[in-house]
Amino acid sequence: MQNEHAGGLLVDCPTRFAVEIIADKWSVLVLFALGQRPRRHGELIEVIGGVSRKVLTHALRRLQEYGLVDRRAQGRHVEYSLTPIGETLIEPIDALTSWARDNGSAILDFQADA
Amino acid sequence: MQNEHAGGLLVDCPTRFAVEIIADKWSVLVLFALGQRPRRHGELIEVIGGVSRKVLTHALRRLQEYGLVDRRAQGRHVEYSLTPIGETLIEPIDALTSWARDNGSAILDFQADA
Repeated sequence: MQNEHAGGLLVDCPTRFAVEIIADKWSVLVLFALGQRPRRHGELIEVIGGVSRKVLTHALRRLQEYGLVDRRAQGRHVEYSLTPIGETLIEPIDALTSWARDNGSAILDFQADA
Repeated sequence: MQNEHAGGLLVDCPTRFAVEIIADKWSVLVLFALGQRPRRHGELIEVIGGVSRKVLTHALRRLQEYGLVDRRAQGRHVEYSLTPIGETLIEPIDALTSWARDNGSAILDFQADA
């Protein structure tokens, strides 16, 4: 953990703003899926699972507005990919998903015992 | 990024569940603040900033239900701290906040130019 800057880090505008961007389940899953490779809308629906077309469209638009995702027409297909800024998120999201793989079941066990 | 397991990773139950836990703005900020040291409710309000008592209480209860946060009476004070499972989140959350510090302003710049 970083040193604490009198709590200023948490209310610091860019940091907080960035936390808002990534603290969204669908955005994390979309960024994760696009970190693997560019994908079409229907592919994202399939790989993410449980997301409606509408919610996915909203998440993609949101990520485009943040400059994290690019929308590109490839012939008849529209493909989504990470922008260079979006690619910088691959590493921290990988840290999260690795954590999830390692610890997700411990949390489910905890809840089962509670 | 990890290899793709035919998309199975995203719909894999523990992984997805864990993403839901952490993909919440207030939870990330609470875990971040408690990663620095145990804190009382009022301290968390102050250090996080912009969170109501009610929303913070809800976030803390949620994190306790997941087994990530411990609530402990210290004399007249109630103090919150990370559990051992909660502590395993320090590293991935640090990766996120480091990313945020490094890239938050690039995103704000992108939006200002849009």
